[in-house]
Parts: sequence; structure tokens; C-alpha cells
Amino acid sequence: MSIDTPRANTLPLALTMGDPAGIGGELSLAAWQHHGGKQGPAFVVLDDPERLASLARHLGMAVPIHVVDGPEEAAVVFPHALPVLPVRLLQPVQPGQPNPAHAPAVLKSIEQAVRLAEAGRVGAVVTNPISKATLYQAGFRFPGHTEYLGALTGTSAPPVMMLACPSLRVVPVTIHVSLLQALAALTTAEIVRQGRVLHHALRQNFGVTHPRIAVAGLNPHAGEGGAMGDEESRIIQPAVDILRAEGMTVTGPLPPDTMFTARARNSYDAALCMYHDQGLIPLKTLDMDGGVNVTLGLPILRTSPDHGTAFDIAGKGEAHPGSLLAALSMAADMAARTPAQDGDIR
Amino acid sequence: MSIDTPRANTLPLALTMGDPAGIGGELSLAAWQHHGGKQGPAFVVLDDPERLASLARHLGMAVPIHVVDGPEEAAVVFPHALPVLPVRLLQPVQPGQPNPAHAPAVLKSIEQAVRLAEAGRVGAVVTNPISKATLYQAGFRFPGHTEYLGALTGTSAPPVMMLACPSLRVVPVTIHVSLLQALAALTTAEIVRQGRVLHHALRQNFGVTHPRIAVAGLNPHAGEGGAMGDEESRIIQPAVDILRAEGMTVTGPLPPDTMFTARARNSYDAALCMYHDQGLIPLKTLDMDGGVNVTLGLPILRTSPDHGTAFDIAGKGEAHPGSLLAALSMAADMAARTPAQDGDIR
Repeated sequence: MSIDTPRANTLPLALTMGDPAGIGGELSLAAWQHHGGKQGPAFVVLDDPERLASLARHLGMAVPIHVVDGPEEAAVVFPHALPVLPVRLLQPVQPGQPNPAHAPAVLKSIEQAVRLAEAGRVGAVVTNPISKATLYQAGFRFPGHTEYLGALTGTSAPPVMMLACPSLRVVPVTIHVSLLQALAALTTAEIVRQGRVLHHALRQNFGVTHPRIAVAGLNPHAGEGGAMGDEESRIIQPAVDILRAEGMTVTGPLPPDTMFTARARNSYDAALCMYHDQGLIPLKTLDMDGGVNVTLGLPILRTSPDHGTAFDIAGKGEAHPGSLLAALSMAADMAARTPAQDGDIR
Repeated sequence: MSIDTPRANTLPLALTMGDPAGIGGELSLAAWQHHGGKQGPAFVVLDDPERLASLARHLGMAVPIHVVDGPEEAAVVFPHALPVLPVRLLQPVQPGQPNPAHAPAVLKSIEQAVRLAEAGRVGAVVTNPISKATLYQAGFRFPGHTEYLGALTGTSAPPVMMLACPSLRVVPVTIHVSLLQALAALTTAEIVRQGRVLHHALRQNFGVTHPRIAVAGLNPHAGEGGAMGDEESRIIQPAVDILRAEGMTVTGPLPPDTMFTARARNSYDAALCMYHDQGLIPLKTLDMDGGVNVTLGLPILRTSPDHGTAFDIAGKGEAHPGSLLAALSMAADMAARTPAQDGDIR
């Protein structure tokens, strides 16, 4: 992947609470322990300061908590304490025991982070994992985190999901549907739409001046000229042609099994994949812990660790902050590379 | 992967000609240059000695050719020269120009190698790549190399394809069909059949005393309890149950995207995959050049490099012998671990 040198980033990041019964809180604490006082992205947590202090005590983590009034204080506070912008919980938290009563605070943390990003007061939003099932019990009506962010920011087109690790970026055109449904849902228009969003994001947020996008085939050997499926000629090649006609550097449809080798990965900046596992198998095979989920197509920058609430290990100090650290680092990097918008105070 | 220590292997391997217009010949020469005189598997090539000598001269490769009458001479010859059991070509070879007139010799090389293995005179057969299109022009009527080997050895059940590299072994239950056809072709019976063949081979040929087989799901997150597809509960889980009931150590259906991480791979000896790219993407992402194709379910041992004839670079000295070297090494290792059969002279 080719990347230009980032400019200095001066804005802190907003880190949301996530489900307080999950591993989000201890990951936030661990991330500060890792980053506090060092070079690295300053961040402010939108969470309940008492519950974080209590969790730190419970886990024996030496993390001083410092309540702030706004993200502007974070840079000064961060070297000495974890800056927390308070979002109060109404009931005590039992790690591993999700509680619908926490839903308003969970959602408020997300909304407030979005508003800070929209106002240009934070560089990006990093979200801790939420539990959709718990939120549904409290009346939440969005399919997921990402759709909620789309609605909060008034984004009409569905956001696009990218998974990224240091050696690979993938965008699966279809995501959380069965493989059979993924085949039925694959259209030229959707590949083109996500290709455009990806191309724009690579230039705008990743500092890739001339993005090179590799488009995967669907079938073994990319169909081998029609011998094993015609989706390549019928659906994918037309999308590649349209993106190319718009001036983008796009290759494909490529044989899926050989496009993720080290050699092949050097030839593109991101891979547009046709279904969930086509992109996520190589990504997680290469980098189990460092995968970061990046939401493209929003007016704000958002990353998240590529794991769930992990209720089964919450509060035990077993959770590994690798993916959250990678999500914070990627968010800071993206914020530094993204030109200031009209209305930004940057 | 857990592997026992191999016993010493005393039999040479039989290496077939493959399509003489492809890269097989130069790979055979390069493999001898790599292995000749060193520790490593001795092999005898079933090829035309004049064409190999001419090819070596053309490419400036210092490979003395020694014609032998049988594989028994190979061990003595191998340290000093490439042992060749002659299979004469009727016309000169033009690298990169496949010629149906060579088909009888190409097939004879394969058949003779099989007979030597059946007679216990070689430890295993390693096949150079053939060109099906060229053989079809000469009247060949088998879908591929593997089916021809099945017919030659009188094997009624279809052989099973394994792809292997040092850190991963995969068996895709469906192979060279479109993804849509692969979904339609997936049955409990076929997963069970291939699981049994795989289990037997791991014990019999790979020295794995207590094989652990990981069975992949089909859908994202292995269907997430039916939310994204029901093939896991309807087709795959029943197969896992049957294999377990037969006493095998089988896990699954596993979420496909997390089952190929380094940590996950330590927990099994081979992965049974539901479609071509589910197995081949992680394998080739991990090891582009070292992948070896192993045919399971034949009464003889057979491996082959995981690439084709590469007519476009044939005769130019550009072909890399990495996969053939891996195929020879794996064949030797398998032969050493496989107990002698009745009728074997081992």
C-alpha cells in the first residue's frame, strides 16, 4: 500500500462507552495505560467516570480518571490521567450482565461523540462494541452501530464497511447475510457505489493520492472465462469498466485465491471483495488482533475494534486491547491525513 | 499441526513429464540442481532424455542426464546426475507451443509412474502440470489429471484434493464449480465422505496418530445461529455429528474468518472447507509458492505443484521450482510415514 506522510494531528479522538457490561471499559483503561504520556493519539472517553474508576480499582489498574468539560482539555490531561467526558449511568454495572437500563447512556455516548466530530472538536470517533440485542430490548430500532451513525449524521446512502490491518484493506460489498443471499444481492450498481466511496476515502482520509483498487472475482479462478460461473462477466466486469471510465485505477475481476499474497497485495491499496469471508478470511489470517473496522461514507471519521462485547470475559482483565489500540491509531492517522472541511476549527 | 517423526525413506519418487511445452521440464532440472547430491528425496523423471538434455543446454543449466532402466538405479545415480526413465517424444518440443502429438507420451509417463508406485518400486508419484485442452485435442476423455489417476488405479470413489503448506492443510469439499453450484452441491454425505478420507490419510500418510479435523461453516460467522443461513444446522452440523460418532476428533462448523489465524491453526491438523476459495484463500495468503496439491483416496501417494503449465514463460528459465520442490519433499515425507502395504517390496 502506498501512503503519503501524514500531517500533524492536533485534535483528540472521542472514544465511546460501548456496552458497559462488555469489555469496552477495561479496554479504554488499558489503551490509556498503553498510550498515556507517550507519543500517540490523545483521546477522551465518553463514559461514566465513577464506573471507570471502580473498574480500574477492581482490576488493579493504575489509571487516574480526570473529568473534563470538553475534548479541548484532553491534550493537557492525557499525559497524566484518562480524560473522561461524563455520560452518567443510572444503575451499577455488572460486568458480563448486559442491562437494557444502560441503553440511553450507551446511545448518548455515541451521539455526543458524533456531535463533537461534526463540530470539529474531535478528529474522529472510535466506538467500543455495543450489544444490539440489549439495545433492542430498550427500543433501539437500527440494524446496527453503523446504521445508527448513518442516521445521526443524516447520511442517506448506506455507509461502507472497511476492514484494515497494516498489510491489507478490504471492503466486502455484501456483509452480514448468508452466502446464498450475498450471491443474490450482488449487483453492478452496488459494486460501483462502494468502489466510488472507497476511492474517495483512500484519497481523502488515507493519504493515498492515486488509489489502486483491486476488485475480486466471485468464483474460483474468477470464473475461468465463464467455465465456473458468469457473475464476473455479467456483474463484476461491468462495474470495473464503469469505475475505470471514471478515471480510477481498478484491476479485476481477480482470482480470489491469489490476490491476497504478499506480492499481490503490493499492487493495490484496497481490495473490493464480493462477500464477507472473501475479505475477512485473508485479513484475519494475516492479522488476528490488529484488524480495525473503518466506516466509510460518513461525514465524520469512525473506526472501531474488530470484535464484540465479549461478555464472557468482561471484568476479568483478560481482554486484549490490540484491536482498540489499532483502531485509535488508525483513527488518529486518518484524522491527520484528512483535509479540514468548511466549518472545521482545524 | 502435530506430526510424528518420519521413518527413513528408501524408495525414490517418480516425477512425470507433464506437458513438455510447459515449465515441467525446466522445473525437473531445477529440482535436481537443488537436491542433487544433497540430503533430500531422490527422484527419477519419466521423460524424454534428449529433450531434457537439450533444454538444459538451452537454459545453460549444468544438469547431467543419466538414462536408467528402472527406479532402483535412481538412488545411486541421483547424487551425480538426473536419473531419467525414458518416455520418448515423437516430435521436437517447442516451449510454449503445446502439441497434441505429445499426448501419448504425456499419458504414458503418468501411467508408468502409477504402475511403478503400485508395484512398490517408487515411494510416490509427483506429477508435473498437464494441459487438459491439449490432451482433449488428442482424444483424452477425463475431466482432469486426478480423475485419470483414479481410473488408472481402479478407484471407484472420486479422489479428494488436499492443498498443503507447512502451516496449513485444507480439503475443499467442492472444487472447480461456480460458487452458486458449490452451494447446491454441498451435502452431508459428501462432507462425511471426504472427512473420512481425510482422517484416514492423516493417520496413514501424514503420521498424525490422533487427527484433529476442523470443519468450516459456510456462512459469515458460521451462520450465527441461523441468522445468516441455515446450511450449518441443516447440512454441516449433521456431518460433524456423524464423523464424531465414528470416533473422530472433529470441531465445527467454525466461523470461517477466524479459523485460519495462527492461534486457531494450532488446534487442528487439517481444515475441511466448504468451497474452493474458503480453503485456498488462506492457504495462498500464507504461502504463495510452497502450496502442494495432494491427492487423497488413491491406493498410491501422489502430490503435484499447485500451478499450471505456464506456457507463457516456458523455456525462458523464469519458472520458480518452489512448489515442485515442496511437492517432492511432501511426497518423500508421506512415503516415509506410510506403512508398507501387502505386496510392497518395502
